[in-house]
Amino acid sequence: MLYYFLFSFALAMDPVPKNIPALLTSDLIENSNDQDWRDVAQKDLIYLQLETGLVLIELNEAFAPKHLLNIKQLAENKYWDNQRISRVQDNYVVQWGGNSEDKTKLKNVKPKLKGEYYSTKIDDSTITSLDDKDVYTKYVGFLNGFPVGHYGNKTWMIHCYGALGVGRDEAFDSGNGAELYTVIGHSPRHLDLNITLVGRVRHGIEHLSSLPRGLGPMGFYKDKNKGMVIKSLRVGTQLPRRQQKFLQVLRTDTPLFKQLIGARKFRQESWFHYRSGRASICNIPLPVRFK
Amino acid sequence: MLYYFLFSFALAMDPVPKNIPALLTSDLIENSNDQDWRDVAQKDLIYLQLETGLVLIELNEAFAPKHLLNIKQLAENKYWDNQRISRVQDNYVVQWGGNSEDKTKLKNVKPKLKGEYYSTKIDDSTITSLDDKDVYTKYVGFLNGFPVGHYGNKTWMIHCYGALGVGRDEAFDSGNGAELYTVIGHSPRHLDLNITLVGRVRHGIEHLSSLPRGLGPMGFYKDKNKGMVIKSLRVGTQLPRRQQKFLQVLRTDTPLFKQLIGARKFRQESWFHYRSGRASICNIPLPVRFK
Repeated sequence: MLYYFLFSFALAMDPVPKNIPALLTSDLIENSNDQDWRDVAQKDLIYLQLETGLVLIELNEAFAPKHLLNIKQLAENKYWDNQRISRVQDNYVVQWGGNSEDKTKLKNVKPKLKGEYYSTKIDDSTITSLDDKDVYTKYVGFLNGFPVGHYGNKTWMIHCYGALGVGRDEAFDSGNGAELYTVIGHSPRHLDLNITLVGRVRHGIEHLSSLPRGLGPMGFYKDKNKGMVIKSLRVGTQLPRRQQKFLQVLRTDTPLFKQLIGARKFRQESWFHYRSGRASICNIPLPVRFK
Repeated sequence: MLYYFLFSFALAMDPVPKNIPALLTSDLIENSNDQDWRDVAQKDLIYLQLETGLVLIELNEAFAPKHLLNIKQLAENKYWDNQRISRVQDNYVVQWGGNSEDKTKLKNVKPKLKGEYYSTKIDDSTITSLDDKDVYTKYVGFLNGFPVGHYGNKTWMIHCYGALGVGRDEAFDSGNGAELYTVIGHSPRHLDLNITLVGRVRHGIEHLSSLPRGLGPMGFYKDKNKGMVIKSLRVGTQLPRRQQKFLQVLRTDTPLFKQLIGARKFRQESWFHYRSGRASICNIPLPVRFK
């Protein structure tokens, strides 16, 4: 392993170790082996088919089981099909759903769910820690591919770019999964622990993030007919096999992923003149590939 | 002044003060007076006129005077007029310029400039500190409306959403202001101190952030003729008065702005169930208004 002497990183911060492995993210991915990747299960994969392309979102079973049941049932009921994106607020969120009272589409769907904002059942030794400060909480890291915060006995998902959350009104039990949003801007961490997060976009987020911004208050479209049409929203297990995509994400509980975190903290690409030695939780990408 | 007891903010972090002023950002703005605002000088205001709308960008005189001279001269020479946006990389940057070797458009423009990554001339007592941790550096705050980092005798602008920077190749002196980019995603803080930042978008960033993403490497458009056309790029002083916009930004050296920071840390809107008591530097918006 090569070591690289970095003279500059004390510029903006307290001293950090001086001998840093010279790793490039691209090399790490290229040299990864199959055990460094995991399949995204079809039961956890949302296919959001827009007129302009397919968005693939991985659901996280660990935090919001009741909301996931509702979301899968709503997808089964074709609840969102032919609805339109209702809200695109710049540097914030894209939002859809929540407006239909069509009984057939709400079959077997719980009308109200208490917020599932965090879990007390996560063993923190299973979190790959970032070993860095965080502005908003004490410990941050990755749990099975998802960025999480941890403090005391509580663990929760973090609002990074691409996070999928459940819209709600003021009351704790006013969301049920029918209204969903995805983060398309700087991480709105003030939403953490305020809302039920259920997953993260793994592929195709540009079909959401490049949508025309809504011109009404909070980025809602003034003309509801201007929103992009959702052709369909399904979970993978609800699709015929020929329509399924076989997506893999880099495992986050491996030595390789720890190296990738290091490579993000100390950018070895020759373009960089200064390496901070730090990374924020939302500035660590999760590599994906198709099988 | 009302005080509001918040029982929940110790959930995710070390304890913070329990008696927090119950301020709403919207109330603060509504109750502001004219002394809380400052005019954006026409000499510091870039008018980036796209086919779809106008983007207004404030230049910051404090950090990169040589680059600002070049940029103003390039605008005077109509360097960017009728060029196209060349790069739109999702969750990262929109970029334009840097490709023309037309001599008439490079008149009085320095072909190379050393990077102006930071200043050693800033009195840190003039920075409105965020008084919060930062992942990447020791001190962060606002200086005359711009988010900055500070450590030792160095102060530099931070890559928040909307930051305007100067593209460069590998060498320290390989940028001159002809190639520019704006951040349209999660703050790429690893670029801090690696690049010359010159300003920040104050109005109309949605005309950049909603552009179709480039499908080539690093988000460059494969077909260069697909990029949005820049009708013109001028500094305010180069425009007839009837075309000038009179923009004001909230001053960041006032008691009101400190209250606004507090309101962002402790969101008093009744929608919030949890207030972290913290805010990251890129999650504090700078209100603007037209006179």
